[in-house]
Amino acid sequence: MADKLQQIQEQVNGITSWDWTLWLLIGAAFVFFMQAGFAMVETGFTRAKNAGNIIMKNLIDFCIGTPAFLILGFGLMMSEDYIAGVVGVPNLDILTKFSSGEIAGLFPSFVFNLVFAATAATIVSGAMAERTKFSAYCIYSAIISLVIYPISAGWVWNSEGWLYKLGFVDFAGSSAIHMVGGISALIGAIFLGARIGKYSIDKKNGKKIARAIPGHSLTLGALGCFILWFGWYGFNGAAATDITQLGQIFATTTIAPAMGTIFAMCYTWIKNGKPDVSMSLNGALAGLVAITAGCSDVDALSSLIIGSVAGILVVVAAEFIDKYLHVDDPVGAIAVHCANGIWGTLAVGLFKHSNTLNDDGSIFSGQGLFYGGGWHQLGVQALGIAGIAAWVVVTMTIVFFLIKKINGLRAPAKDEIEGLDITEHGLPSSYGGFMFDPEAIEPSEVLEFYETAVPVTEAVPIIRKTAPAEGTPKFTKVDIVTKPAKLEALKVALNAIGISGMTVTNVMGFGMQGGSVEKYRGVDIEVTFMPKVKLEIVVCRVPVELVVETARKVLYTGELGDGKIFIHDVEDVIKVRTGERGYDALQDVE
Amino acid sequence: MADKLQQIQEQVNGITSWDWTLWLLIGAAFVFFMQAGFAMVETGFTRAKNAGNIIMKNLIDFCIGTPAFLILGFGLMMSEDYIAGVVGVPNLDILTKFSSGEIAGLFPSFVFNLVFAATAATIVSGAMAERTKFSAYCIYSAIISLVIYPISAGWVWNSEGWLYKLGFVDFAGSSAIHMVGGISALIGAIFLGARIGKYSIDKKNGKKIARAIPGHSLTLGALGCFILWFGWYGFNGAAATDITQLGQIFATTTIAPAMGTIFAMCYTWIKNGKPDVSMSLNGALAGLVAITAGCSDVDALSSLIIGSVAGILVVVAAEFIDKYLHVDDPVGAIAVHCANGIWGTLAVGLFKHSNTLNDDGSIFSGQGLFYGGGWHQLGVQALGIAGIAAWVVVTMTIVFFLIKKINGLRAPAKDEIEGLDITEHGLPSSYGGFMFDPEAIEPSEVLEFYETAVPVTEAVPIIRKTAPAEGTPKFTKVDIVTKPAKLEALKVALNAIGISGMTVTNVMGFGMQGGSVEKYRGVDIEVTFMPKVKLEIVVCRVPVELVVETARKVLYTGELGDGKIFIHDVEDVIKVRTGERGYDALQDVE
Amino acid sequence: MADKLQQIQEQVNGITSWDWTLWLLIGAAFVFFMQAGFAMVETGFTRAKNAGNIIMKNLIDFCIGTPAFLILGFGLMMSEDYIAGVVGVPNLDILTKFSSGEIAGLFPSFVFNLVFAATAATIVSGAMAERTKFSAYCIYSAIISLVIYPISAGWVWNSEGWLYKLGFVDFAGSSAIHMVGGISALIGAIFLGARIGKYSIDKKNGKKIARAIPGHSLTLGALGCFILWFGWYGFNGAAATDITQLGQIFATTTIAPAMGTIFAMCYTWIKNGKPDVSMSLNGALAGLVAITAGCSDVDALSSLIIGSVAGILVVVAAEFIDKYLHVDDPVGAIAVHCANGIWGTLAVGLFKHSNTLNDDGSIFSGQGLFYGGGWHQLGVQALGIAGIAAWVVVTMTIVFFLIKKINGLRAPAKDEIEGLDITEHGLPSSYGGFMFDPEAIEPSEVLEFYETAVPVTEAVPIIRKTAPAEGTPKFTKVDIVTKPAKLEALKVALNAIGISGMTVTNVMGFGMQGGSVEKYRGVDIEVTFMPKVKLEIVVCRVPVELVVETARKVLYTGELGDGKIFIHDVEDVIKVRTGERGYDALQDVE
Repeated sequence: MADKLQQIQEQVNGITSWDWTLWLLIGAAFVFFMQAGFAMVETGFTRAKNAGNIIMKNLIDFCIGTPAFLILGFGLMMSEDYIAGVVGVPNLDILTKFSSGEIAGLFPSFVFNLVFAATAATIVSGAMAERTKFSAYCIYSAIISLVIYPISAGWVWNSEGWLYKLGFVDFAGSSAIHMVGGISALIGAIFLGARIGKYSIDKKNGKKIARAIPGHSLTLGALGCFILWFGWYGFNGAAATDITQLGQIFATTTIAPAMGTIFAMCYTWIKNGKPDVSMSLNGALAGLVAITAGCSDVDALSSLIIGSVAGILVVVAAEFIDKYLHVDDPVGAIAVHCANGIWGTLAVGLFKHSNTLNDDGSIFSGQGLFYGGGWHQLGVQALGIAGIAAWVVVTMTIVFFLIKKINGLRAPAKDEIEGLDITEHGLPSSYGGFMFDPEAIEPSEVLEFYETAVPVTEAVPIIRKTAPAEGTPKFTKVDIVTKPAKLEALKVALNAIGISGMTVTNVMGFGMQGGSVEKYRGVDIEVTFMPKVKLEIVVCRVPVELVVETARKVLYTGELGDGKIFIHDVEDVIKVRTGERGYDALQDVE
Repeated sequence: MADKLQQIQEQVNGITSWDWTLWLLIGAAFVFFMQAGFAMVETGFTRAKNAGNIIMKNLIDFCIGTPAFLILGFGLMMSEDYIAGVVGVPNLDILTKFSSGEIAGLFPSFVFNLVFAATAATIVSGAMAERTKFSAYCIYSAIISLVIYPISAGWVWNSEGWLYKLGFVDFAGSSAIHMVGGISALIGAIFLGARIGKYSIDKKNGKKIARAIPGHSLTLGALGCFILWFGWYGFNGAAATDITQLGQIFATTTIAPAMGTIFAMCYTWIKNGKPDVSMSLNGALAGLVAITAGCSDVDALSSLIIGSVAGILVVVAAEFIDKYLHVDDPVGAIAVHCANGIWGTLAVGLFKHSNTLNDDGSIFSGQGLFYGGGWHQLGVQALGIAGIAAWVVVTMTIVFFLIKKINGLRAPAKDEIEGLDITEHGLPSSYGGFMFDPEAIEPSEVLEFYETAVPVTEAVPIIRKTAPAEGTPKFTKVDIVTKPAKLEALKVALNAIGISGMTVTNVMGFGMQGGSVEKYRGVDIEVTFMPKVKLEIVVCRVPVELVVETARKVLYTGELGDGKIFIHDVEDVIKVRTGERGYDALQDVE
Repeated sequence: MADKLQQIQEQVNGITSWDWTLWLLIGAAFVFFMQAGFAMVETGFTRAKNAGNIIMKNLIDFCIGTPAFLILGFGLMMSEDYIAGVVGVPNLDILTKFSSGEIAGLFPSFVFNLVFAATAATIVSGAMAERTKFSAYCIYSAIISLVIYPISAGWVWNSEGWLYKLGFVDFAGSSAIHMVGGISALIGAIFLGARIGKYSIDKKNGKKIARAIPGHSLTLGALGCFILWFGWYGFNGAAATDITQLGQIFATTTIAPAMGTIFAMCYTWIKNGKPDVSMSLNGALAGLVAITAGCSDVDALSSLIIGSVAGILVVVAAEFIDKYLHVDDPVGAIAVHCANGIWGTLAVGLFKHSNTLNDDGSIFSGQGLFYGGGWHQLGVQALGIAGIAAWVVVTMTIVFFLIKKINGLRAPAKDEIEGLDITEHGLPSSYGGFMFDPEAIEPSEVLEFYETAVPVTEAVPIIRKTAPAEGTPKFTKVDIVTKPAKLEALKVALNAIGISGMTVTNVMGFGMQGGSVEKYRGVDIEVTFMPKVKLEIVVCRVPVELVVETARKVLYTGELGDGKIFIHDVEDVIKVRTGERGYDALQDVE
């Protein structure tokens, strides 16, 4: 009977343990999916000519990180044989051990820690986008996963780590992951320098002016943010070991980013007059980063405050980094991950509010400043930030310095201007088959197809029905360049005066447009190239002056940008279908 | 011994409870991810000029909904202090309570109910897309999450709610969420009016004609549908509390949308002659909405029938709303969520088939009409629909009326035509860096780069090798506007007569194309602007007549749309690399 | 007391069982989500003109597969009444049974097996993309889910199946799913023939030359790969029944694709000089396919080796299939799923390394060749591959032959060239609203809007301020066609000589560009159409020769592709806003 009882007890303990390990693995899959989120955010917020390159970096840092973390990083971080609270003695247990008992805890822990390590690595790719040599990025990526991340992360999460022992709280990695990635991003971006065209010198006062370089798909960037938020439930939650804790984490991880978004939106709305889309998306990410450290240790109200501050902090930090530090961070990685990683870690010292127990049954020590715990926890948090930051600043500076010296860090200017897709990967465009597919058609096959399909015979000759007799009105081409919004109205008006054929092209018009200055991520976009449409019309019967008058009536607003009309001579016109030439060829289009 | 047994029993009960709460939270994350699905569907099915605005709305309704639901909505809906079966007494428990025992059930319930509330809110954004003032949307979004959704949802899911007590069955919210969102969408769309250009008056009979306004990325729209379907396993399943029930939910939630897709596809195939892509996607969503009420209460065969009906209903409803009611719903939200929400809720009254137990061990009461339960359950379902619908119609009418009066609901016509991205958010384009990146290059840096890199000296002067002597053939520009599919053949043919240089542009041609009428979501697309290519060739040596004859041979089919050829005079040509001018400059391209 | 104990024991057993069934269902949802991954990969890697068609195929094969598998397939595969180890006796249990006890195991098993069946079906759509009749695909899709997949999958996974009994190990379906899909893809692609333009005959030696046909969005393709990898944790893991096994599966399923990516990248880097993006993505998928059979039976080191080999194999196989077999597989489905499915299944025979127990407590038999188990397991694996392959080759050949005879398999050449979106689905473009929205504006409304908004009166007449007096310099249009990267520099330089107005168009230039040959998926891309920009400038005051000289200075590099300058006569210019004509109209733009 007692045996049976003992057996059941063991079964029950087993269930308890595997339940939370099962969730740990599901959570790890969520965190893996964040790689897709980073890839979409970084690609969407940069230009189309580098899309393939950025995707490649996001893919490869996970893939290079895997063997790097397998061989060395995981041991340095989580080894049981941990020296002086600072570094583990690496081993190859993962590769060599394989009995059920040995791997039951080891494999889940490896996968779990790997996906987090890969997150730290991938943060950097955004800040270094559009100008980094691909080989340099591969080297950086291996080193951060091999050595740099694992050592400081071990301080925080290995139960022998010096920060762990001090009571430093960073539940899911505001500092251990996001600040580490953010600082590396900052150092990398400084070593690289800004993208060509990002900063110019104001001739009047000699100051640097930041320019906006819009990304190529805000839609994909937004999708990436949603994926990141979704994955963050695993990121913050995976290490939970009881349901109260997990419920708390889900609540704080929902409230903080919601408030971050609202505050980023309202702040830009008040400051620039319009709610900024990409900054609101960054506000969500900032809230997520900031709640990461304290997600399991703060209450709902605190998460609301932490997220709200994060939403403003990210906007201020992004502008400060761009306009005052003149560090070019295409996706705002430094403002999101570094600034808010620090804020989130400090916030634990302010808002820590225990409701859960330690493994040994004691209550978590160290209430935050605002919950009566005094300055102690805040001090520990600050110490942890300083310690980790010092480690990353020193090591990453050395790493980027050596990469720059030995391998070269930055792509040549010519490559950067042409785009890294073609120069680094031989990819003419990531969107090659989007509009044109000229090479997709086999000439001879096609010709044959048309030759057999279509009876092109001498029976359909070109007939110059109307000889250009004396007094025949000449053919004139009228090109109208104007705003796209006027296209439909113009079409209707021209139709009304007898013109039913025209060719329309999307063009960019450059001219004196005056103060059309919008903000993109807090920086002015000088829209000197404005989207325009060009209508080409060829007239003969309809008088040119009537076309000009009609177009003016429709297009005139009295504001800059109403457009221009150009008049050219045309020698002849042929209609393919009928073979008609000249006057007759125009009779259905004019 | 008994103590020990008691202890184990408690542990086992604990596991049972947390297992299903863990799944509740995982399911809630799935439901959160549906926000990404909605964002992609709504953005993909509308135009590029509003992409940022739509994303912003999808993001912000979740974010505004969070504090709104936190402060008031959650209390109104789920408070234990529930008045007269109609409304809860709100409290701030979530913000103030924090001991383990207090939050163990509270926090998961809050997160779970919040993600559902946000779904109801976000349904509306699709129907109101492309013409709503952003500030108006923010206000609407706060109100629905604060008051309107929580009160009727409490009727259904609070165990003190009057509909709950009546035995109304809406497991995951066909009526409480989708119909509520769908009705709000309908009222919002009516208050707003149609987008400019959506309806025109037929001059012959004075009737309104609906026009198709194609979305800008069916691919992203489809991705959104797949994400929604994936998330729906959480949406329908999260509240399950035993594995039999969850298995049943997964099965019905798979079968119904599959059948919805097939029937929507076949119906459009038969009706329009071709299987419609976007309607098939809507068919999947319709099946999901329809099975939401009964997912845990119907068998596989019933789910098959419910989904099949939904697939046809969504197509019929979309057309009816568009062509007869003349309500402009850009993404079909009303047909998907309102029509099928009602159908799904009624279907429970027809197909309810119990296999599971109530909390107290009794068998679920109320078999459906087709399973021998008589008209009772159907009556209850109808009553519930009527009650909820009445509440939403009255309150949302007041809400939209007041927003329209006080804040204004619709963006100015000028903003709508230019696009809400630029006018509401100062974003020139969500795809700014897609093709052009004019502002991305620093002029002086670039000039310097080229000046140092390239020896542009007087040593490479422009040499007019061939003086335009008497009898020199003149330069002529031939512009050919034709179908894109002919491009390759034309290139080869022109090559064969000695022309190897040409410039090709994607243009839109407007002309008399005749009956090229296709359907988009059941409405005719009058493709009067057809995609064309324009080839520009400059010839000197090659006779113009030969070019014209060759082009005609390749392009001629005898059908409308074969294209036109325009001939212009050119004064001079310069080849940049060699400095050759005139005749010589053309010798490699002609 | 003993009763109580018995009761608790049953509860505990219940929890153990439902825990893993719960995970089975979560895993099934992950596998469902892979449909989104396939849709994005296949759409991204093909051309925009077929995007809607490919999405439709991916959607519909799941939807048609659902009733097909429900009615027949599931019974053939998993029926308990299994004849001679070869085929089950189908039944309609799913549609008819509904008591709690009956469906508790049945419904989860159905959903689980269905999502796998749909994966096998959808693999084929990629290889047959861009040229298959939609109706033919629907028929194929029904047949594979009805009969072909279920029968061979039953051999592997039904405990009565002959391969199962032989000890054939294919945990999650390298052969049962991926090879089956891959072989079907191969046969389908052979029956179809290559896309028009994919192969041409080299006139010199009469050999077939493969050409690259780039996809329209590598970004979406990459997103699809990330989604697939994420879903694969469910694909490989869902059937796990203890936590040790699941941890192992997560580890091997992470390591193999990481190594596959690295090796594919390095192999292309060494071979072509540049790391290929799309091949690296395929490398990840290849690693996933290869580890699928052994994910639960190999150790970390073995998964590292299996993935590495897969990374090289996929590149070699893709080239072999394309360049030597001349089978046109637009997305590389055959190389990924067939070649690596076979490799992964064989690898189990080499690397099988048991650490887990059978249901009856015995140790898994059959260590692999490299772990001392001799040739036995390898022999069984080879036999299984041969058996399944024989079944699929024979049946799919019959299926495609009959479809071709009766319904027709391939779309007409004209449809293929125009794109299947318009011809099969009546969809003018999947990206209709991306740039133009001509039909979106109601002409009369717009005209009215502008008429009321803008005071176009006779008071703003066109004034020919400067009569074209004797000696007035004429108007000249200068068209410059050059590389996009030079745009900004040119703009600045022209500005400096007094020209501030220009119109810029993205065009494609065709000409003698010389050896600009890049690789796309191992095949040369002959970039004879190069992206260019065309600047159009009209000058009057500024001398044409100065424009030409300035442009040459900026554009000149001495390399092919510097561009051309064309000079035309212009008759007149009108500025819309001011009504100025001729010389004055140009004074702000020149």
